[in-house]
Amino acid sequence: MASVELYDTTLRDGAQSEGISFSVVDKLHIAQKLDELGIHYIEGGWPGSNPKDAEFYKKAKGLSLKNARIVVFGSTRRRGIKAEEDNNLVMLVEAGVKVATIVGKSSDLQVTRVLKTTLEENLSMIADSIHYLKSKGIDVFFDAEHYFDGYKSNPEYALQTLIVAIGAGADCLVLCDTNGGALPDEVTKAVKAVAKATKVPLGIHTHNDGGLALANTLAAVQAGATQVQATINGYGERCGNANLCTVIAALKLKMGIDCITDEQLGRLTEVSHFVSEAANLVPDPYSPYVGTSAFSHKAGYHMDGIMKWPDAYQHIDPTRVGNRQRTVVSDQSGKRNIIYKAREMGIDLSTDAKETQGLLKHIKFLESRGFQYDNAEASFELLLHRAEPDYKPPFELVDFMVVVESRRRPSTRKAAEEMLSEAIVKVKVGEEIIHTAAEGDGPVNALDRALRKALLQFYPSLKQVKLVDYKVRILEESVGTESQVRVLIESSDGVDEWRTVGGSTNIIEASWLALADGLEYWLVKQKTK
Amino acid sequence: MASVELYDTTLRDGAQSEGISFSVVDKLHIAQKLDELGIHYIEGGWPGSNPKDAEFYKKAKGLSLKNARIVVFGSTRRRGIKAEEDNNLVMLVEAGVKVATIVGKSSDLQVTRVLKTTLEENLSMIADSIHYLKSKGIDVFFDAEHYFDGYKSNPEYALQTLIVAIGAGADCLVLCDTNGGALPDEVTKAVKAVAKATKVPLGIHTHNDGGLALANTLAAVQAGATQVQATINGYGERCGNANLCTVIAALKLKMGIDCITDEQLGRLTEVSHFVSEAANLVPDPYSPYVGTSAFSHKAGYHMDGIMKWPDAYQHIDPTRVGNRQRTVVSDQSGKRNIIYKAREMGIDLSTDAKETQGLLKHIKFLESRGFQYDNAEASFELLLHRAEPDYKPPFELVDFMVVVESRRRPSTRKAAEEMLSEAIVKVKVGEEIIHTAAEGDGPVNALDRALRKALLQFYPSLKQVKLVDYKVRILEESVGTESQVRVLIESSDGVDEWRTVGGSTNIIEASWLALADGLEYWLVKQKTK
Repeated sequence: MASVELYDTTLRDGAQSEGISFSVVDKLHIAQKLDELGIHYIEGGWPGSNPKDAEFYKKAKGLSLKNARIVVFGSTRRRGIKAEEDNNLVMLVEAGVKVATIVGKSSDLQVTRVLKTTLEENLSMIADSIHYLKSKGIDVFFDAEHYFDGYKSNPEYALQTLIVAIGAGADCLVLCDTNGGALPDEVTKAVKAVAKATKVPLGIHTHNDGGLALANTLAAVQAGATQVQATINGYGERCGNANLCTVIAALKLKMGIDCITDEQLGRLTEVSHFVSEAANLVPDPYSPYVGTSAFSHKAGYHMDGIMKWPDAYQHIDPTRVGNRQRTVVSDQSGKRNIIYKAREMGIDLSTDAKETQGLLKHIKFLESRGFQYDNAEASFELLLHRAEPDYKPPFELVDFMVVVESRRRPSTRKAAEEMLSEAIVKVKVGEEIIHTAAEGDGPVNALDRALRKALLQFYPSLKQVKLVDYKVRILEESVGTESQVRVLIESSDGVDEWRTVGGSTNIIEASWLALADGLEYWLVKQKTK
Repeated sequence: MASVELYDTTLRDGAQSEGISFSVVDKLHIAQKLDELGIHYIEGGWPGSNPKDAEFYKKAKGLSLKNARIVVFGSTRRRGIKAEEDNNLVMLVEAGVKVATIVGKSSDLQVTRVLKTTLEENLSMIADSIHYLKSKGIDVFFDAEHYFDGYKSNPEYALQTLIVAIGAGADCLVLCDTNGGALPDEVTKAVKAVAKATKVPLGIHTHNDGGLALANTLAAVQAGATQVQATINGYGERCGNANLCTVIAALKLKMGIDCITDEQLGRLTEVSHFVSEAANLVPDPYSPYVGTSAFSHKAGYHMDGIMKWPDAYQHIDPTRVGNRQRTVVSDQSGKRNIIYKAREMGIDLSTDAKETQGLLKHIKFLESRGFQYDNAEASFELLLHRAEPDYKPPFELVDFMVVVESRRRPSTRKAAEEMLSEAIVKVKVGEEIIHTAAEGDGPVNALDRALRKALLQFYPSLKQVKLVDYKVRILEESVGTESQVRVLIESSDGVDEWRTVGGSTNIIEASWLALADGLEYWLVKQKTK
């Protein structure tokens, strides 16, 4: 079977998912990860519909990508104007990338009912738009919207939109199941019909409204499509898009199509979790291949089988996708993970040493309070340092108080201008105690300022450390505002970035611990440099 | 195409899902609901492996079912003993139902490596067990475990296990993709081979490890299977089973197979949510057909289409499965979404009216402060109410103060036990001002308690309103702790759930606004009931 090129649209179609809103920084981080995973095309956004997306393309020029090409997305020109007069198309050119995907309508009903124009004008819109972009030296993928619905209602017209796109120079024809309602055999038939009519490469873009986005994608590949458009974790409008993680695993492990290397495949679970973190969504534990429950076993009947033959109840070796087998009752691999991680940091823990046992116990305790170190290596490293008998922290937290006060007149609902947030902190450096205070824009910002104020006189270089991300996750939904809170903070000194964690039932305390770790980690690193 | 019988295994295989533990009462309620949905067979459990399951069968005799037959599950006899000496089989008879499903191995590797017996003995185990149950007047479905893996490694033996089952009188041969790794074309081939060899009805039982449980189920039906085994919401071990909700909708609406009536189909969303409630799991919003996001629209581009043609971006009419179209109001959507959304709530906004323009401006302002109505219809509805000249809020926020204090000794890093969180609130109800205070587990919990304390004397029924979820999102990463904060709160009165939002640069204020909206929304709803 021909090779397949992977086209990620997490940053555009994935961002249409209810509840997802990526910042430009999120998008740049995700693009970098996708490149490392071996994705061939990364669609960054739709500059014509969203000013944030235009900014992404500016900043994306600073990325150094090894595998991927950045793609810009837009639609065919509006009816009744010239392509070069359509601001949406001009912005595609201005994005400054060499590949563009443009969406056009392939369904006659969509043309007449939604575009409210003639079938002929729609064809001109497709041709003109592709011509215009090609004349600017841009490769063009034509996104044939509603292709499968169109192919059912008017197959001749659906095919005609493709033929027009080919005539205008389209480099790939992407057949879209926009409403996500197609069945695999319908996809097979429609793709085969197009493959018979043209040699231009075909792509497939599916949605999961019928629960068949993956099956439809694979059916299209079997019928001849060589470009697959999907999103990490299947994020996307309504029920989502085809899940790129599952698509990749199915292509590599089930169909023998080498779309990425074995090594890259081994990062699949990591990338999936990274993107859900950026989306601030809890990773789906039941997700095929990459979910935490994907290879976990609960039934005694199955456990018994696994003891005799590890593959008895798993369809693949989970390490191939960077996941692992878990038993739900007793999780014994924890210890090994910790020893392994410590070794990565140059700290050698033996399984049996007393200190290791104590450290493990301490970590278990912290985890029960909401700490989690998967995404907060800096806090984990500090934890290991603190277990060393001769560790001298650059500062110690003594105590703090935060006051948040609002004074407003009845019947108005204005915002933070009238808010006062103040933090009082007590910190120990060496033998000295510093007691100081600061105001801030919110309680966490006040704490951050007060803590820095206390430390700057001892460590003036701390000035260059900045907090770049702050995320909050509530751990047990059922308990509402009394739940465990986990705060993840990302700090940067302009060169390196590091992440720290704080856990508590109190969001202010969790933030305080994560903030302090962020500063302590940097100070420790400076000393050892 | 032949009709299809639906076999639900939520109560047995679904209960294997990590995080699910049904009580006997839960199981009885679910069985009742499944019967109302028109399910033909309900598997209640495995009495031989779980004492709770034996109790279910006792109590299930009290159910009055209109459509469904209760089925008991067990395995073939142990090796080396007689069927009637196997307690597991005896308990199946004692369950007192007229249909039993027994699982036996169809894969040669599973027989030799896991059962650790000969291929011949396994065949005897299958035959003896079926004989025994049939001699007790019980219909027997033979669950051919690992059928598709077995068919790949040793097709002759796999088929032989079925032939033995037929010889012993099996009433249905259920082909299982136990490890969930099969591809649809493998399923098609294997099912067709069996259909050619026997006239005994075939069933299909799939798992979702490869993300293809649904596709494999539909492929089997197209190849001749007439019984479908699945679970509500796809609950099940690892990545779950085929999702019965999606299976039913696909059979009825996509393949024209009348497995339940149109009226029963209209209850699909309700049944899905009922079962997730019983499982104490948050319903998956992105679930095909039944998810709350399954027919929700966010992109302005799509909204524009829907205003012109409701079906432009939906694959079926959502009311057919008891779901509904929703508009997501987000910073990506324009005026049209807002007007459409208001219309859903029975409030008519015209595009040009002065009030509409004012409201839109106000919404844009709030969005720039971090509010987002995507996921917070209740706050959005309040916003519309507040724009009405005669709206009288049930209460008004005047002001509040929050104090969070930690007192700790140097060099220890203990947690929330030593924290104090206190909130002082001032609220106006009618002409009365209430000024009160409460402590809490964290600042938001303290605010929540103080606010309720102030309001309960006026609205004692507020007691039943509970906060069920609290989410925090930081909006602009670049600015760190000074960023906009968005708090989303989900409240419930045990029957309905609603979501509210608060935005501010101050996390405490954002929480305060979302909390207050959650209570105000419910009070307004009560008044209009």
